[in-house]
Amino acid sequence: MTFAALPANAKVFNAETFTLENGLQVIVVPNHRAPVVTHMAWYKVGAVDEPQGLSGMAHYLEHLLFKGTKTLAPGEFSRIVKRLGGNDNAFTGQDYTAYFQSIAKQHLPEMMRMEADRMVNLQVPPEHFKSEKKVVLEERRQRTENDPKGLFGEQMRSALFANHAYGTPVIGWMHEIKEYEWDDIQKFYNSWYAPNNAIVIISGDVTADEVRPMAEASYGQIEPKELPKRLNSKVPPAIGKTLMTLSHETIHQPVWQNIRLAPSYGQNRQDSLALQVLEEIMSGSATTRLYQNLVVDQKRAISVGLSYSGSARYTGVITLYGSPAQGVTLEELAADVQAQIKAVIKDGVTQDEIKDAVQRLQDSADYARDSLSGPAMTIGFNMLTGSTLDDIENWPDDIAGVTAEDVKRVAALYLDDDNPWRRVSVTGHLLPISEKEEMKADNKEAKNEGVE
Amino acid sequence: MTFAALPANAKVFNAETFTLENGLQVIVVPNHRAPVVTHMAWYKVGAVDEPQGLSGMAHYLEHLLFKGTKTLAPGEFSRIVKRLGGNDNAFTGQDYTAYFQSIAKQHLPEMMRMEADRMVNLQVPPEHFKSEKKVVLEERRQRTENDPKGLFGEQMRSALFANHAYGTPVIGWMHEIKEYEWDDIQKFYNSWYAPNNAIVIISGDVTADEVRPMAEASYGQIEPKELPKRLNSKVPPAIGKTLMTLSHETIHQPVWQNIRLAPSYGQNRQDSLALQVLEEIMSGSATTRLYQNLVVDQKRAISVGLSYSGSARYTGVITLYGSPAQGVTLEELAADVQAQIKAVIKDGVTQDEIKDAVQRLQDSADYARDSLSGPAMTIGFNMLTGSTLDDIENWPDDIAGVTAEDVKRVAALYLDDDNPWRRVSVTGHLLPISEKEEMKADNKEAKNEGVE
Repeated sequence: MTFAALPANAKVFNAETFTLENGLQVIVVPNHRAPVVTHMAWYKVGAVDEPQGLSGMAHYLEHLLFKGTKTLAPGEFSRIVKRLGGNDNAFTGQDYTAYFQSIAKQHLPEMMRMEADRMVNLQVPPEHFKSEKKVVLEERRQRTENDPKGLFGEQMRSALFANHAYGTPVIGWMHEIKEYEWDDIQKFYNSWYAPNNAIVIISGDVTADEVRPMAEASYGQIEPKELPKRLNSKVPPAIGKTLMTLSHETIHQPVWQNIRLAPSYGQNRQDSLALQVLEEIMSGSATTRLYQNLVVDQKRAISVGLSYSGSARYTGVITLYGSPAQGVTLEELAADVQAQIKAVIKDGVTQDEIKDAVQRLQDSADYARDSLSGPAMTIGFNMLTGSTLDDIENWPDDIAGVTAEDVKRVAALYLDDDNPWRRVSVTGHLLPISEKEEMKADNKEAKNEGVE
Repeated sequence: MTFAALPANAKVFNAETFTLENGLQVIVVPNHRAPVVTHMAWYKVGAVDEPQGLSGMAHYLEHLLFKGTKTLAPGEFSRIVKRLGGNDNAFTGQDYTAYFQSIAKQHLPEMMRMEADRMVNLQVPPEHFKSEKKVVLEERRQRTENDPKGLFGEQMRSALFANHAYGTPVIGWMHEIKEYEWDDIQKFYNSWYAPNNAIVIISGDVTADEVRPMAEASYGQIEPKELPKRLNSKVPPAIGKTLMTLSHETIHQPVWQNIRLAPSYGQNRQDSLALQVLEEIMSGSATTRLYQNLVVDQKRAISVGLSYSGSARYTGVITLYGSPAQGVTLEELAADVQAQIKAVIKDGVTQDEIKDAVQRLQDSADYARDSLSGPAMTIGFNMLTGSTLDDIENWPDDIAGVTAEDVKRVAALYLDDDNPWRRVSVTGHLLPISEKEEMKADNKEAKNEGVE
């Protein structure tokens, strides 16, 4: 087993890290090819931490962080970044909220000062709170409400993640976004935005020794907070199969989807690594099992795949999906895919498949390293979803340690439909339909109001 | 339209009511046929008010109220009731927790004193907290875990009530019952058990004038509390059909179930009354529509029915169900039932059907009045689930006001599968299966652990 570009046991990023007295962890990934940096602040708070009934609040708050502090006017943050020749943005997930700027290295102290400022000094004029609410509602309208497939995807996820915040969309339910007030948001902000609930990551033309005094002068001035207890509601087991069906005029090609729970990396490191290799063997390229067998050889499908999402603070998910070839039903495609899985469970995979899969996965680590923002993104994302910095650095070696026996074992444990793990999977059928027959569930009323 | 046993505009119970200074409402339903009383304390707190992740707590707390106060030893409460010749018990629902004793009238002051005592003085020895946990876990094991149909019913309800506490079973999820400690329970108790969050109802051989001084001497001594804000998370709309399937060796007869949301009485009084009449017309007796047409005449089913649950603090539910005759599939039975509904939507119902349905419903009010505990049960249940005392007293007249047009309208609004209301319904198929084919989802591991 060789490793593409690095000597054995080399670290992926060779990141340096230190922690300020207030609990803020700083990670620096030096990259001296150009005098630029990407500066990211990752908060360990996301949609999953929202109070019940107030979904979308983490994402909405992310928008508001651009709408003013005690010393900056609404929009001024991004205008300054732009004036200094940089660009900035932010994003929110179930498990995190992240802010970043890419900019010339001499402006890093200013970026850190400004990011530290909005960690504690948020002050949004009421008219901006209101106008931004419209922006977020429109964002949901565009992305989800007007997309039956999007609404259906939310519904499937909601059924799989019963009793769990992962069943709630990150952007929030329409009727809940409408409801919260500035007081609710401020309480959430005051509770979770704190140096001891954040990781700052800088990749680019700097070293930890350079960054430390800047971090101390900015973030270091902020007091730590006592953080709220995190909710920990688990998904109960499920005994029956679930099939959801959407027939809609906007669907032109039948699609089969199947989602099921699986352990995340943080929950079961060894099984998660094996599932990553299994995913790659089943679905990593046009010559791997599912596509080669069902699309190319047997011509049963026009597309097919397996995707494992193991980066999560709580549980992970495996998604199977495909579109059948003409004359093949969705039920038949599902059986074909399960037969491919049964083959792995029964006969295992070859050493060559393992070798190729590990190689492709290790290559992906190279790609992540080979950009300015890539390291900050990769490290932040993984640290906020169950990995330690060491896990990330050693991942290529750990992946190389996965055996054919591991892959066979996790296929049997997590993908056998005859012996489901904890919770029987949820299947979705998306079907074309004539306008006349279309169900009217997506009327305006249904879209915009929840039921108490 | 006549009214069976009462003159027009008569009240059902002729209840008397007063409210103590601390906010406790007392309701008295005099019934002097025997020198006995039923004394009930209804708390406006149930499973729906539980903190996320701590399901079953309201029910568990109900058990603990028999396990001692500052002055009573564990079990002593019920021993005293028994020694005085009475009997006592308690029950918990989504929206309420209720305690009652039936006993000779001279012991009412003692019952009120003891009930008031455990409203604020609960003190459970740690060993009883632990042993009662085992009792509750065993209760869940017996009633649900060992009953695949029970687990499946929970799963269906959980899918319909996405994002809503009504999707969580009253007894709690197994893995969550195991987790809470005495501190969690005590916090819940201290928050919700208060005179201003309770209604005390006494039916039997007393008058309000007799009860008032007793209530003041017992409950009246307790300080009111500031109650927590109630969660109000709504069910989001759903765009796709959901079909859940359980094939299990314990199922001997195929069963079709279909559940959907509908307004509760508190949410929409007029529609709820019309749905009660519709339920009665479709499914009230062996000669009403569903049974007469599908079982007796067409012989398509061996059982079939429609049930509307409109007594709820939040949303209501309509359940359709049936078992097909030999040779009829579950899909065909579903279509037959929908055809019966379409007939109501298209052609309405007859005056005779309305008259018979109203008569049967009004008779049920008589039955409720005609027992010692019936009035306390009926009044408590309905007041805790969206009705006022006046609503309950006037219900027979209100039901008589429902028109054929109302019934047709609510059938179209809430029961038309081609134009679902807010959230597309959830269907369940329960199917027999040979032991060999049985899915193994109900293995021990799946039953006892949730997934984070």
